[in-house]
Amino acid sequence: MREADRLAISDVLIDYCRFLDAMDLEAIARLFTRDCIVDYGEHALLRSNGADALALSLQRMWRWARTSHHLSNIRIWFDGPHAAHSVSYVLAWHERPDGSTATILGQYQDGFTLTENGWLISQRKMFCNGNDAGFSVPIHFFERRKPPQGWTPPQIDSR
Amino acid sequence: MREADRLAISDVLIDYCRFLDAMDLEAIARLFTRDCIVDYGEHALLRSNGADALALSLQRMWRWARTSHHLSNIRIWFDGPHAAHSVSYVLAWHERPDGSTATILGQYQDGFTLTENGWLISQRKMFCNGNDAGFSVPIHFFERRKPPQGWTPPQIDSR
Amino acid sequence: MREADRLAISDVLIDYCRFLDAMDLEAIARLFTRDCIVDYGEHALLRSNGADALALSLQRMWRWARTSHHLSNIRIWFDGPHAAHSVSYVLAWHERPDGSTATILGQYQDGFTLTENGWLISQRKMFCNGNDAGFSVPIHFFERRKPPQGWTPPQIDSR
Repeated sequence: MREADRLAISDVLIDYCRFLDAMDLEAIARLFTRDCIVDYGEHALLRSNGADALALSLQRMWRWARTSHHLSNIRIWFDGPHAAHSVSYVLAWHERPDGSTATILGQYQDGFTLTENGWLISQRKMFCNGNDAGFSVPIHFFERRKPPQGWTPPQIDSR
Repeated sequence: MREADRLAISDVLIDYCRFLDAMDLEAIARLFTRDCIVDYGEHALLRSNGADALALSLQRMWRWARTSHHLSNIRIWFDGPHAAHSVSYVLAWHERPDGSTATILGQYQDGFTLTENGWLISQRKMFCNGNDAGFSVPIHFFERRKPPQGWTPPQIDSR
Repeated sequence: MREADRLAISDVLIDYCRFLDAMDLEAIARLFTRDCIVDYGEHALLRSNGADALALSLQRMWRWARTSHHLSNIRIWFDGPHAAHSVSYVLAWHERPDGSTATILGQYQDGFTLTENGWLISQRKMFCNGNDAGFSVPIHFFERRKPPQGWTPPQIDSR
């Protein structure tokens, strides 16, 4: 089960959220490998090659006045002694200086490498499960399966 | 503390959420025992006996266009070498094809059995801690304790 | 990594949320040391010395009709064999008897002591990352770093 490795990887995923809400971008860069590939969406500004480029790119988060990134549903699989991948969910709340807000419910799909500095994120791709009307960043869309042919909705809601 | 068993049970709870958002109902069925009892509320459509019946029943989730189930507050207790029970919280966001949304904040109270296929959910009951105006599925209501006789609210909010 | 200690501390953090939503204040008192210091904000009603005073103070939560406290992002560090500290995130939803709601997205910064009754919270300070318009309790404000001189926002949102 590699409990210690799982906890170490969890800690990295959580630190990303904490450091982002604190806008400690130097600390965020240290969570990723030097040659990491990060891909939040098709837009050029949503893609980074390398930890330093990522930290620079995440300066975009200063366009929000406050943020809160709540990480849950952490699943980790090992691909060998020095490699792992994970899926985790995030509820990310953002507030603009004018007080309006934007929330995304999404998932990170990450690759990890065990380095001399511990487990680091070597690959990250983000998908959007859902979002409110205030959120308009074009994150990758998460695809669910389609209903079978001829499926009709049951009457279950109380109104 | 049985750390490995706790992680295995956590994984099942999380997989349920992930598979539901992906509408992979075959994968959901494999998380439950063949004879599981699942009870989300009084409505007949909210109750299932057996993993196959549950998977069939969860086809109802296709009436939403998108969902995101965020699991947290996982507590696990062991009742012997092959039995456990848990409480976990879920923030479940749902969007209709017309773009309107429904959110429930609830808790799963589950029983687990260790089988030859690992830890599986043998019993599930869901309770609603809270919900927004858009959510109208009649999930079991979570009861909190009542205030003592004569209790009066303090003035603490800033408005 | 002290996996068992980490799980035990996690359990205390989660139980606080569960017991608060159930308004089981006697059970909450047993999660804190007798001489704990709890500080949710500057307001006198938001500060408590000792587990009994805390339980009494939390009677204020009865002014809500329903609550749901979702804990995530749990990070734990050990400061010796009998001491630890943690940061954890909470999404706390509250509903008034009139049906209006208030949500805070915040973080607990806690100190723990290992006692003969297990790991207990000896110090708690709460910070507000964000909140909706309905939430007006003056919780400590979480400060993020400021942008560098001359920073200008990129055009990344799709509207």
